[in-house]
Amino acid sequence: MSTERLDAQMAFLIEAGRLSAVTRATKTSDGARFENSAEHSWHLALFALVLGEHAPEGVTIERVIKMLLLHDLVEIDAGDNPFFGEVDETAKEAEEAAAADRLFGLLPADQGAALRALWDEFEANETPDARFAKSVDRFQPPNMNLVTQGGSWVDYKVTWPVFEKKMAPKIKSGAPKLWDWLAPKVEAFLARLSH
Amino acid sequence: MSTERLDAQMAFLIEAGRLSAVTRATKTSDGARFENSAEHSWHLALFALVLGEHAPEGVTIERVIKMLLLHDLVEIDAGDNPFFGEVDETAKEAEEAAAADRLFGLLPADQGAALRALWDEFEANETPDARFAKSVDRFQPPNMNLVTQGGSWVDYKVTWPVFEKKMAPKIKSGAPKLWDWLAPKVEAFLARLSH
Ligand SMILES: [Ca+2]
Repeated sequence: MSTERLDAQMAFLIEAGRLSAVTRATKTSDGARFENSAEHSWHLALFALVLGEHAPEGVTIERVIKMLLLHDLVEIDAGDNPFFGEVDETAKEAEEAAAADRLFGLLPADQGAALRALWDEFEANETPDARFAKSVDRFQPPNMNLVTQGGSWVDYKVTWPVFEKKMAPKIKSGAPKLWDWLAPKVEAFLARLSH
Repeated sequence: MSTERLDAQMAFLIEAGRLSAVTRATKTSDGARFENSAEHSWHLALFALVLGEHAPEGVTIERVIKMLLLHDLVEIDAGDNPFFGEVDETAKEAEEAAAADRLFGLLPADQGAALRALWDEFEANETPDARFAKSVDRFQPPNMNLVTQGGSWVDYKVTWPVFEKKMAPKIKSGAPKLWDWLAPKVEAFLARLSH
C-alpha cells in the first residue's frame, strides 16, 4: 500500500502532540498546577459528551466533540489567550489563521480541508454545533476556578459584574441551561472573594 | 429547572479532571516530560478522528472517540499500567472495576450505566469499535517513542522480538493497516537501539 496518506497524518498527529506544551490560565481539578491545552481539550470533549442532553435542539454532539478536539490546535503556534487578559484581537486572529494553515496543511489535502472547515465553523460561532462547542469552552474554566479557590479570577481580580458582562453572552448564546446553572454559583463565589 | 442531573454530571466532570494527575511511561511529542493520561486521551481521540479511514469495515469512529475519551478514567483510582512492566492482571482488573463503579456512579444512574457500558465494551475488546479503539491505544505509544529517542523502550530495554510478540497481536487485531505501517519503523529503530 502507498504510505503517503499515513505518513502525512502521522506527521500531523505528532505535531499536534505539542499542544501539551501550551499552558493555560486555569488550574487542573486538584489545583496542583496550571492546565495545558491538550488535557483541557480532552476535558471539554468529555464535558460535551456528558452535557449533551442540555444542548439546544439541533446540536449534533459528535460534531461538537470533533470541534473541541481540534479547537485549540492553533495555540501550538499562537499560544493561549486568557479571557481576562489584554489582547490585540486582529493580530491574534491573523496569527491563528496562519497557524491553522500550517497545521492542517500537514494533512492530506482533502482531509486538511475538511478539518480546517470544522475549525473555521467553530471560530465563526454561527451554527448550533459551533455555538454549543464555544459555550462549553467558556463554561469549563469558571467551573475549574470554583473548585480551585478562584484560580485565574484571583490573578485577574475578576468581579461578578465583569464576569457577567464578559461571559454571560458567550455561555448563554450556545448553552443557556449551563449558564442558568453556573451563574448563581459564580456570583456567590465572587461576592465572597471580593470581601 | 431541577439541577439534580447537572449537579451529578458536574461532580463527575470535576472528578474526571483528576486524570491529569496520572503520569504515563511515554513522553510528550517534544520529549520534555512524561505524558499524563488526560492529554494522552485527547491525543488518542485525535488519532481516531484522523486515522478513521484506515479502520476495518464496520467501525463507527464517533463511538470509538467516545470510548477513547472514557477509557483511562479508571486510572484516577487504579493508576497507569505500563505495557512492558510487571503486573498482577487479576488484581488490576478488580481495582479498575471498583474504580469504574465509583466514577461512573457519580453520574445520573441512566447515564452512568450507558457510559459504563461503553467502557465495558472497550475493555472486553470484542466489537469492531472496541478493537479499533484498543488498537489505537496501543499504536500511539510506540509512535511517541519513535520521536522521543526511544522513550519507555529504553527504560524497559525493549527489543524487537519482545515488542513484536507483545504488540503485534494487539495492534493487528483492530487496525492491521496501522500495524503494517508501524512495524518496519519500530524494527529498524530497535535494531539501532540495541547496538
Ligand atoms: Ca491508554
